[in-house]
Amino acid sequence: MITTIGFDGDDTLWHNESIFSMTQDKFRQLLLRYVPGLEIDKILYITELRNLKLFGYGIKGFTLSMIETAIEVSQGRVGATDIQRIIDFGKAMLEHPVELIEGAAPTLDRLRGTYQLILITKGDLFDQESKLARSGLADGFSKIEILSEKDERTYRHLLDRHGVPVENFLMVGNSLKSDVLPVLSIGGQAVHVPYPVTWIHEEVHERRRLPSGYRTLSRLAELPGLLEELDTHAVAAEPG
Amino acid sequence: MITTIGFDGDDTLWHNESIFSMTQDKFRQLLLRYVPGLEIDKILYITELRNLKLFGYGIKGFTLSMIETAIEVSQGRVGATDIQRIIDFGKAMLEHPVELIEGAAPTLDRLRGTYQLILITKGDLFDQESKLARSGLADGFSKIEILSEKDERTYRHLLDRHGVPVENFLMVGNSLKSDVLPVLSIGGQAVHVPYPVTWIHEEVHERRRLPSGYRTLSRLAELPGLLEELDTHAVAAEPG
Repeated sequence: MITTIGFDGDDTLWHNESIFSMTQDKFRQLLLRYVPGLEIDKILYITELRNLKLFGYGIKGFTLSMIETAIEVSQGRVGATDIQRIIDFGKAMLEHPVELIEGAAPTLDRLRGTYQLILITKGDLFDQESKLARSGLADGFSKIEILSEKDERTYRHLLDRHGVPVENFLMVGNSLKSDVLPVLSIGGQAVHVPYPVTWIHEEVHERRRLPSGYRTLSRLAELPGLLEELDTHAVAAEPG
Repeated sequence: MITTIGFDGDDTLWHNESIFSMTQDKFRQLLLRYVPGLEIDKILYITELRNLKLFGYGIKGFTLSMIETAIEVSQGRVGATDIQRIIDFGKAMLEHPVELIEGAAPTLDRLRGTYQLILITKGDLFDQESKLARSGLADGFSKIEILSEKDERTYRHLLDRHGVPVENFLMVGNSLKSDVLPVLSIGGQAVHVPYPVTWIHEEVHERRRLPSGYRTLSRLAELPGLLEELDTHAVAAEPG
Protein backbone atom coordinates (compact mmCIF):
# COMPACT_ATOMS: atom_id res chain seq x y z
CA MET A 1 0.00 0.00 0.00
CA ILE A 2 1.49 3.31 -1.12
CA THR A 3 1.07 6.14 1.40
CA THR A 4 3.85 8.48 0.32
CA ILE A 5 4.91 9.63 -3.13
CA GLY A 6 8.21 11.31 -3.85
CA PHE A 7 8.45 13.61 -6.87
CA ASP A 8 11.61 14.65 -8.57
CA GLY A 9 11.66 18.34 -9.65
CA ASP A 10 13.97 18.97 -12.64
CA ASP A 11 12.53 17.49 -15.85
CA THR A 12 9.75 15.76 -13.91
CA LEU A 13 7.69 18.71 -12.67
CA TRP A 14 9.43 21.53 -14.52
CA HIS A 15 11.68 21.83 -17.56
CA ASN A 16 15.40 21.93 -16.81
CA GLU A 17 17.56 19.96 -19.24
CA SER A 18 16.11 21.96 -22.13
CA ILE A 19 17.57 25.13 -20.54
CA PHE A 20 20.99 23.47 -20.36
CA SER A 21 20.70 22.30 -24.00
CA MET A 22 19.72 25.78 -25.12
CA THR A 23 22.75 27.21 -23.33
CA GLN A 24 25.03 24.59 -24.81
CA ASP A 25 23.82 25.67 -28.26
CA LYS A 26 24.82 29.25 -27.51
CA PHE A 27 28.14 28.09 -26.06
CA ARG A 28 28.86 26.03 -29.18
CA GLN A 29 28.16 29.05 -31.39
CA LEU A 30 30.43 31.25 -29.30
CA LEU A 31 33.39 28.89 -29.64
CA LEU A 32 32.82 27.88 -33.25
CA ARG A 33 36.03 29.57 -34.35
CA TYR A 34 38.05 27.29 -32.03
CA VAL A 35 36.10 24.03 -32.23
CA PRO A 36 33.81 23.21 -35.13
CA GLY A 37 30.66 21.15 -34.71
CA LEU A 38 29.64 19.09 -31.74
CA GLU A 39 33.14 18.27 -30.49
CA ILE A 40 32.85 21.02 -27.89
CA ASP A 41 29.97 19.19 -26.13
CA LYS A 42 32.25 16.26 -25.43
CA ILE A 43 35.05 18.44 -24.07
CA LEU A 44 32.58 20.36 -21.88
CA TYR A 45 31.20 17.11 -20.53
CA ILE A 46 34.69 15.88 -19.63
CA THR A 47 35.33 19.17 -17.81
CA GLU A 48 32.01 18.86 -15.97
CA LEU A 49 32.79 15.32 -14.85
CA ARG A 50 36.25 16.33 -13.67
CA ASN A 51 34.75 19.19 -11.65
CA LEU A 52 31.71 17.32 -10.31
CA LYS A 53 33.47 16.18 -7.13
CA LEU A 54 34.32 19.80 -6.32
CA PHE A 55 31.34 21.69 -7.73
CA GLY A 56 28.43 19.29 -7.35
CA TYR A 57 25.36 19.72 -9.59
CA GLY A 58 23.94 23.05 -10.60
CA ILE A 59 24.18 26.07 -12.83
CA LYS A 60 27.06 27.86 -11.09
CA GLY A 61 29.36 24.86 -11.39
CA PHE A 62 28.20 24.39 -15.00
CA THR A 63 29.09 28.01 -15.76
CA LEU A 64 32.57 27.64 -14.27
CA SER A 65 33.04 24.47 -16.34
CA MET A 66 31.99 26.34 -19.50
CA ILE A 67 34.59 29.02 -18.76
CA GLU A 68 37.33 26.43 -18.19
CA THR A 69 36.38 24.66 -21.40
CA ALA A 70 36.51 27.91 -23.37
CA ILE A 71 39.99 28.67 -22.02
CA GLU A 72 41.15 25.15 -22.78
CA VAL A 73 39.84 24.85 -26.35
CA SER A 74 41.03 28.34 -27.30
CA GLN A 75 44.45 27.62 -25.75
CA GLY A 76 44.08 30.73 -23.65
CA ARG A 77 43.06 32.98 -26.55
CA VAL A 78 39.43 33.48 -25.57
CA GLY A 79 38.83 37.11 -24.66
CA ALA A 80 37.29 38.62 -21.54
CA THR A 81 34.22 39.72 -23.48
CA ASP A 82 33.44 36.12 -24.36
CA ILE A 83 34.07 35.01 -20.77
CA GLN A 84 31.59 37.66 -19.61
CA ARG A 85 29.16 36.34 -22.22
CA ILE A 86 29.46 32.86 -20.69
CA ILE A 87 28.78 34.26 -17.21
CA ASP A 88 25.73 35.97 -18.69
CA PHE A 89 24.59 32.59 -20.13
CA GLY A 90 24.75 31.25 -16.57
CA LYS A 91 22.80 34.20 -15.19
CA ALA A 92 20.16 33.82 -17.88
CA MET A 93 19.76 30.17 -16.84
CA LEU A 94 19.33 31.17 -13.20
CA GLU A 95 16.74 33.77 -14.17
CA HIS A 96 14.95 31.59 -16.69
CA PRO A 97 11.22 31.34 -15.98
CA VAL A 98 10.19 28.03 -14.50
CA GLU A 99 8.07 26.21 -17.06
CA LEU A 100 5.95 23.42 -15.66
CA ILE A 101 5.80 20.03 -17.33
CA GLU A 102 2.37 19.45 -18.83
CA GLY A 103 0.01 17.98 -16.28
CA ALA A 104 2.24 18.68 -13.26
CA ALA A 105 -0.08 20.95 -11.29
CA PRO A 106 -3.36 19.02 -11.82
CA THR A 107 -1.63 15.68 -11.10
CA LEU A 108 -0.33 16.95 -7.76
CA ASP A 109 -3.75 18.45 -6.98
CA ARG A 110 -5.43 15.14 -7.62
CA LEU A 111 -3.04 13.10 -5.47
CA ARG A 112 -2.65 15.48 -2.55
CA GLY A 113 -5.72 14.35 -0.62
CA THR A 114 -4.86 10.65 -0.81
CA TYR A 115 -1.09 10.55 -0.42
CA GLN A 116 1.64 12.37 1.42
CA LEU A 117 3.63 14.14 -1.32
CA ILE A 118 7.34 14.89 -0.90
CA LEU A 119 9.42 16.86 -3.36
CA ILE A 120 12.82 15.16 -3.60
CA THR A 121 15.21 17.09 -5.81
CA LYS A 122 18.94 17.11 -6.31
CA GLY A 123 21.19 20.06 -6.92
CA ASP A 124 22.08 23.48 -5.73
CA LEU A 125 20.03 24.46 -2.66
CA PHE A 126 19.63 28.08 -3.68
CA ASP A 127 18.66 27.29 -7.32
CA GLN A 128 16.22 24.59 -6.31
CA GLU A 129 14.49 26.71 -3.67
CA SER A 130 14.22 29.53 -6.15
CA LYS A 131 12.76 27.27 -8.85
CA LEU A 132 10.31 25.71 -6.42
CA ALA A 133 9.14 29.13 -5.26
CA ARG A 134 8.67 30.28 -8.85
CA SER A 135 6.95 27.03 -9.86
CA GLY A 136 3.94 27.75 -7.66
CA LEU A 137 3.93 24.07 -6.62
CA ALA A 138 5.45 24.38 -3.14
CA ASP A 139 2.14 24.33 -1.25
CA GLY A 140 1.25 21.00 -2.82
CA PHE A 141 3.98 19.20 -0.88
CA SER A 142 3.92 18.24 2.76
CA LYS A 143 7.71 18.03 2.74
CA ILE A 144 10.53 19.42 0.61
CA GLU A 145 13.88 17.65 0.41
CA ILE A 146 16.79 19.05 -1.54
CA LEU A 147 19.68 16.60 -1.64
CA SER A 148 23.19 16.91 -3.00
CA GLU A 149 22.96 13.34 -4.36
CA LYS A 150 20.13 10.84 -4.81
CA ASP A 151 21.32 7.35 -4.04
CA GLU A 152 20.35 4.39 -1.85
CA ARG A 153 21.94 5.93 1.21
CA THR A 154 20.23 9.32 0.91
CA TYR A 155 16.80 7.80 0.11
CA ARG A 156 17.06 5.43 3.07
CA HIS A 157 18.10 8.27 5.36
CA LEU A 158 15.25 10.48 4.13
CA LEU A 159 12.58 7.82 4.62
CA ASP A 160 13.93 7.03 8.11
CA ARG A 161 13.86 10.68 9.00
CA HIS A 162 10.21 11.01 7.99
CA GLY A 163 9.19 7.65 9.45
CA VAL A 164 8.00 6.30 6.08
CA PRO A 165 8.39 2.50 5.69
CA VAL A 166 10.07 1.90 2.35
CA GLU A 167 7.33 -0.53 1.23
CA ASN A 168 4.84 2.35 1.41
CA PHE A 169 6.97 4.64 -0.73
CA LEU A 170 6.81 5.30 -4.45
CA MET A 171 9.14 7.65 -6.32
CA VAL A 172 8.27 9.42 -9.58
CA GLY A 173 10.93 10.90 -11.82
CA ASN A 174 12.59 11.17 -15.20
CA SER A 175 15.97 9.74 -14.22
CA LEU A 176 16.49 5.99 -14.02
CA LYS A 177 19.78 6.60 -12.25
CA SER A 178 18.53 9.00 -9.57
CA ASP A 179 14.80 8.39 -9.25
CA VAL A 180 14.19 4.75 -10.13
CA LEU A 181 17.14 2.39 -9.54
CA PRO A 182 18.18 3.44 -6.00
CA VAL A 183 14.56 3.38 -4.80
CA LEU A 184 13.97 -0.09 -6.24
CA SER A 185 17.13 -1.44 -4.68
CA ILE A 186 16.13 -0.36 -1.17
CA GLY A 187 12.72 -2.01 -1.63
CA GLY A 188 10.54 0.91 -2.71
CA GLN A 189 8.50 1.36 -5.87
CA ALA A 190 9.18 3.71 -8.74
CA VAL A 191 7.54 5.21 -11.81
CA HIS A 192 9.70 6.44 -14.65
CA VAL A 193 8.39 9.38 -16.68
CA PRO A 194 11.12 10.00 -19.28
CA TYR A 195 11.98 13.50 -20.46
CA PRO A 196 12.84 14.03 -24.13
CA VAL A 197 16.43 15.04 -23.27
CA THR A 198 18.59 13.30 -20.66
CA TRP A 199 21.92 14.66 -19.48
CA ILE A 200 24.49 12.07 -20.45
CA HIS A 201 25.60 11.76 -16.80
CA GLU A 202 22.10 10.58 -15.83
CA GLU A 203 21.94 7.99 -18.58
CA VAL A 204 21.95 4.36 -17.65
CA HIS A 205 23.82 2.34 -20.20
CA GLU A 206 21.91 -0.50 -21.70
CA ARG A 207 24.57 -3.03 -20.92
CA ARG A 208 23.56 -2.59 -17.30
CA ARG A 209 20.51 -4.77 -17.05
CA LEU A 210 17.49 -2.85 -15.87
CA PRO A 211 15.34 -4.38 -13.18
CA SER A 212 11.74 -5.02 -14.10
CA GLY A 213 10.00 -3.76 -10.96
CA TYR A 214 9.08 -0.29 -12.18
CA ARG A 215 6.53 1.22 -14.52
CA THR A 216 7.08 3.74 -17.28
CA LEU A 217 4.59 6.43 -18.20
CA SER A 218 4.82 8.72 -21.16
CA ARG A 219 2.96 11.53 -19.43
CA LEU A 220 2.78 12.61 -15.79
CA ALA A 221 -0.99 12.96 -16.08
CA GLU A 222 -1.27 9.16 -16.34
CA LEU A 223 0.02 8.75 -12.78
CA PRO A 224 -3.28 8.92 -10.87
CA GLY A 225 -4.73 6.21 -13.12
CA LEU A 226 -1.71 3.98 -12.57
CA LEU A 227 -1.90 4.43 -8.80
CA GLU A 228 -5.56 3.41 -8.79
CA GLU A 229 -4.63 0.33 -10.75
CA LEU A 230 -1.78 -0.51 -8.33
CA ASP A 231 -4.11 -0.04 -5.36
CA THR A 232 -6.71 -2.37 -6.85
CA HIS A 233 -3.96 -4.91 -7.41
CA ALA A 234 -2.79 -4.56 -3.82
CA VAL A 235 -6.31 -5.05 -2.49
CA ALA A 236 -6.87 -8.01 -4.81
CA ALA A 237 -3.60 -9.56 -3.65
CA GLU A 238 -4.46 -9.37 0.03
CA PRO A 239 -5.08 -12.77 1.64
CA GLY A 240 -8.70 -13.73 2.19
CA MET B 1 14.95 25.44 30.17
CA ILE B 2 17.16 24.85 27.17
CA THR B 3 16.73 21.42 25.57
CA THR B 4 18.07 22.08 22.09
CA ILE B 5 21.17 23.93 20.95
CA GLY B 6 21.72 25.07 17.37
CA PHE B 7 25.30 25.53 16.18
CA ASP B 8 26.35 27.58 13.22
CA GLY B 9 29.16 25.95 11.14
CA ASP B 10 31.27 28.52 9.24
CA ASP B 11 33.46 30.54 11.61
CA THR B 12 31.73 29.03 14.64
CA LEU B 13 32.85 25.39 14.43
CA TRP B 14 35.37 25.66 11.60
CA HIS B 15 37.35 28.42 9.94
CA ASN B 16 35.78 29.89 6.82
CA GLU B 17 36.12 33.65 6.48
CA SER B 18 39.90 33.33 6.81
CA ILE B 19 39.88 31.23 3.60
CA PHE B 20 37.90 33.95 1.81
CA SER B 21 40.32 36.64 3.13
CA MET B 22 43.32 34.64 2.01
CA THR B 23 41.79 34.31 -1.46
CA GLN B 24 40.99 37.99 -1.59
CA ASP B 25 44.66 38.71 -0.87
CA LYS B 26 45.68 36.58 -3.85
CA PHE B 27 42.98 38.20 -5.99
CA ARG B 28 44.21 41.68 -5.02
CA GLN B 29 47.78 40.73 -5.98
CA LEU B 30 46.64 39.34 -9.31
CA LEU B 31 44.87 42.56 -10.28
CA LEU B 32 47.38 44.99 -8.83
CA ARG B 33 48.28 46.28 -12.28
CA TYR B 34 44.68 47.39 -12.83
CA VAL B 35 43.66 48.51 -9.33
CA PRO B 36 46.18 49.50 -6.71
CA GLY B 37 45.61 48.83 -3.01
CA LEU B 38 42.40 47.85 -1.31
CA GLU B 39 40.01 49.49 -3.78
CA ILE B 40 39.44 46.12 -5.45
CA ASP B 41 37.86 44.71 -2.27
CA LYS B 42 35.12 47.31 -2.45
CA ILE B 43 34.43 46.64 -6.14
CA LEU B 44 34.34 42.89 -5.52
CA TYR B 45 31.91 43.38 -2.66
CA ILE B 46 29.60 45.46 -4.84
CA THR B 47 29.68 42.70 -7.48
CA GLU B 48 28.94 40.06 -4.84
CA LEU B 49 25.95 42.01 -3.52
CA ARG B 50 24.60 42.53 -7.03
CA ASN B 51 24.89 38.78 -7.71
CA LEU B 52 23.67 37.54 -4.32
CA LYS B 53 20.04 37.34 -5.41
CA LEU B 54 21.06 35.07 -8.32
CA PHE B 55 24.00 33.15 -6.87
CA GLY B 56 23.22 32.87 -3.15
CA TYR B 57 26.08 32.29 -0.70
CA GLY B 58 29.04 30.07 -1.39
CA ILE B 59 32.36 29.64 -3.10
CA LYS B 60 31.12 29.04 -6.65
CA GLY B 61 29.15 32.27 -6.71
CA PHE B 62 32.11 34.07 -5.11
CA THR B 63 34.39 32.74 -7.85
CA LEU B 64 32.05 33.93 -10.60
CA SER B 65 31.92 37.35 -8.91
CA MET B 66 35.74 37.49 -8.81
CA ILE B 67 35.85 36.79 -12.56
CA GLU B 68 33.27 39.49 -13.29
CA THR B 69 35.17 41.95 -11.14
CA ALA B 70 38.45 41.15 -12.92
CA ILE B 71 36.82 41.74 -16.30
CA GLU B 72 35.25 44.97 -15.11
CA VAL B 73 38.31 46.55 -13.49
CA SER B 74 40.59 45.58 -16.38
CA GLN B 75 38.05 46.93 -18.87
CA GLY B 76 38.12 43.59 -20.61
CA ARG B 77 41.90 43.36 -20.80
CA VAL B 78 42.36 40.55 -18.27
CA GLY B 79 43.71 37.45 -20.01
CA ALA B 80 42.41 33.89 -20.02
CA THR B 81 45.40 32.73 -17.96
CA ASP B 82 44.41 35.05 -15.14
CA ILE B 83 40.77 33.97 -15.39
CA GLN B 84 41.92 30.36 -15.07
CA ARG B 85 43.97 31.41 -12.05
CA ILE B 86 40.83 32.83 -10.44
CA ILE B 87 38.94 29.58 -11.09
CA ASP B 88 41.86 27.78 -9.46
CA PHE B 89 41.56 30.08 -6.43
CA GLY B 90 37.95 28.92 -6.15
CA LYS B 91 38.92 25.27 -6.47
CA ALA B 92 41.62 25.68 -3.82
CA MET B 93 38.96 27.11 -1.49
CA LEU B 94 36.67 24.14 -2.13
CA GLU B 95 39.52 21.74 -1.46
CA HIS B 96 40.91 23.61 1.52
CA PRO B 97 41.23 21.38 4.59
CA VAL B 98 38.56 22.02 7.18
CA GLU B 99 40.25 23.52 10.24
CA LEU B 100 38.22 23.31 13.41
CA ILE B 101 37.82 26.29 15.70
CA GLU B 102 39.68 25.70 18.96
CA GLY B 103 37.49 23.86 21.42
CA ALA B 104 34.81 22.86 18.88
CA ALA B 105 35.05 19.07 19.22
CA PRO B 106 35.35 18.83 23.04
CA THR B 107 32.55 21.39 23.51
CA LEU B 108 30.16 19.34 21.36
CA ASP B 109 31.26 16.16 23.14
CA ARG B 110 30.49 17.69 26.51
CA LEU B 111 27.04 18.95 25.54
CA ARG B 112 25.84 15.99 23.52
CA GLY B 113 24.54 13.93 26.45
CA THR B 114 22.50 16.78 27.94
CA TYR B 115 21.12 18.61 24.92
CA GLN B 116 19.84 17.86 21.46
CA LEU B 117 22.42 19.43 19.13
CA ILE B 118 21.46 20.68 15.66
CA LEU B 119 23.91 22.00 13.11
CA ILE B 120 22.28 24.99 11.39
CA THR B 121 24.42 26.36 8.60
CA LYS B 122 23.82 28.61 5.64
CA GLY B 123 25.29 28.34 2.18
CA ASP B 124 25.86 26.00 -0.67
CA LEU B 125 24.46 22.53 0.06
CA PHE B 126 27.31 20.67 -1.61
CA ASP B 127 30.08 22.77 0.02
CA GLN B 128 28.51 22.57 3.45
CA GLU B 129 27.98 18.80 3.31
CA SER B 130 31.54 18.35 2.14
CA LYS B 131 32.91 20.55 4.94
CA LEU B 132 30.79 18.81 7.54
CA ALA B 133 31.99 15.40 6.37
CA ARG B 134 35.62 16.52 6.46
CA SER B 135 35.20 18.22 9.86
CA GLY B 136 34.60 14.89 11.60
CA LEU B 137 31.84 16.55 13.65
CA ALA B 138 28.79 15.14 11.85
CA ASP B 139 28.14 12.32 14.34
CA GLY B 140 27.91 14.81 17.18
CA PHE B 141 24.66 16.23 15.82
CA SER B 142 21.24 14.68 16.01
CA LYS B 143 20.10 16.84 13.11
CA ILE B 144 21.76 18.69 10.27
CA GLU B 145 20.06 21.69 8.66
CA ILE B 146 21.58 23.49 5.70
CA LEU B 147 19.57 26.59 4.83
CA SER B 148 19.88 29.05 1.99
CA GLU B 149 19.16 31.91 4.40
CA LYS B 150 18.98 32.21 8.19
CA ASP B 151 16.21 34.55 9.21
CA GLU B 152 13.15 34.61 11.48
CA ARG B 153 11.06 32.71 8.97
CA THR B 154 13.55 29.89 8.38
CA TYR B 155 14.34 29.48 12.12
CA ARG B 156 10.63 29.35 12.96
CA HIS B 157 10.00 26.83 10.23
CA LEU B 158 12.94 24.65 11.33
CA LEU B 159 11.87 24.59 14.99
CA ASP B 160 8.28 23.78 13.99
CA ARG B 161 9.50 20.96 11.81
CA HIS B 162 11.48 19.40 14.65
CA GLY B 163 8.81 20.09 17.29
CA VAL B 164 11.12 22.26 19.39
CA PRO B 165 9.35 25.03 21.35
CA VAL B 166 11.27 28.25 20.73
CA GLU B 167 11.64 28.93 24.48
CA ASN B 168 13.69 25.73 24.77
CA PHE B 169 16.05 26.71 21.94
CA LEU B 170 19.44 28.38 22.11
CA MET B 171 21.54 29.27 19.06
CA VAL B 172 25.32 29.60 19.08
CA GLY B 173 27.19 31.40 16.32
CA ASN B 174 29.59 34.08 15.20
CA SER B 175 27.12 36.18 13.22
CA LEU B 176 24.85 38.66 14.98
CA LYS B 177 22.85 38.99 11.77
CA SER B 178 22.28 35.29 11.07
CA ASP B 179 22.73 33.50 14.41
CA VAL B 180 21.68 35.94 17.11
CA LEU B 181 19.18 38.60 16.08
CA PRO B 182 16.60 36.45 14.23
CA VAL B 183 16.58 33.87 17.06
CA LEU B 184 16.08 36.53 19.72
CA SER B 185 13.28 38.13 17.80
CA ILE B 186 11.28 34.91 17.59
CA GLY B 187 11.70 34.37 21.36
CA GLY B 188 14.71 32.03 21.50
CA GLN B 189 18.03 32.53 23.21
CA ALA B 190 21.41 33.11 21.61
CA VAL B 191 25.10 33.10 22.38
CA HIS B 192 27.45 35.15 20.23
CA VAL B 193 30.99 33.84 19.78
CA PRO B 194 32.66 36.42 17.51
CA TYR B 195 35.20 35.40 14.91
CA PRO B 196 38.21 37.69 14.30
CA VAL B 197 37.06 38.45 10.73
CA THR B 198 33.46 39.16 9.74
CA TRP B 199 32.31 39.40 6.14
CA ILE B 200 31.01 42.93 5.68
CA HIS B 201 27.62 41.56 4.59
CA GLU B 202 27.17 39.88 7.99
CA GLU B 203 28.09 42.99 9.95
CA VAL B 204 25.41 44.69 11.98
CA HIS B 205 25.88 48.42 11.97
CA GLU B 206 26.13 50.03 15.31
CA ARG B 207 23.43 52.55 14.61
CA ARG B 208 21.03 49.61 14.75
CA ARG B 209 20.53 49.19 18.47
CA LEU B 210 21.43 45.70 19.61
CA PRO B 211 19.03 43.94 21.94
CA SER B 212 20.42 42.94 25.32
CA GLY B 213 19.05 39.42 25.58
CA TYR B 214 22.08 37.51 24.42
CA ARG B 215 25.48 36.62 25.85
CA THR B 216 28.86 36.97 24.21
CA LEU B 217 31.69 34.52 24.74
CA SER B 218 35.22 34.98 23.54
CA ARG B 219 35.80 31.25 23.19
CA LEU B 220 33.50 28.35 22.31
CA ALA B 221 34.95 26.30 25.16
CA GLU B 222 33.23 28.64 27.64
CA LEU B 223 29.79 27.51 26.44
CA PRO B 224 29.24 24.53 28.80
CA GLY B 225 30.04 26.76 31.80
CA LEU B 226 27.61 29.41 30.62
CA LEU B 227 24.87 26.84 30.10
CA GLU B 228 25.30 25.53 33.64
CA GLU B 229 25.01 29.06 34.90
CA LEU B 230 21.84 29.69 32.86
CA ASP B 231 20.32 26.45 34.15
CA THR B 232 21.02 27.38 37.78
CA HIS B 233 19.40 30.74 37.10
CA ALA B 234 16.37 29.07 35.58
CA VAL B 235 15.99 26.78 38.60
CA ALA B 236 16.52 29.67 41.04
CA ALA B 237 13.91 31.71 39.19
CA GLU B 238 11.23 29.04 39.38
CA PRO B 239 8.36 29.96 41.70
CA GLY B 240 8.37 28.29 45.13
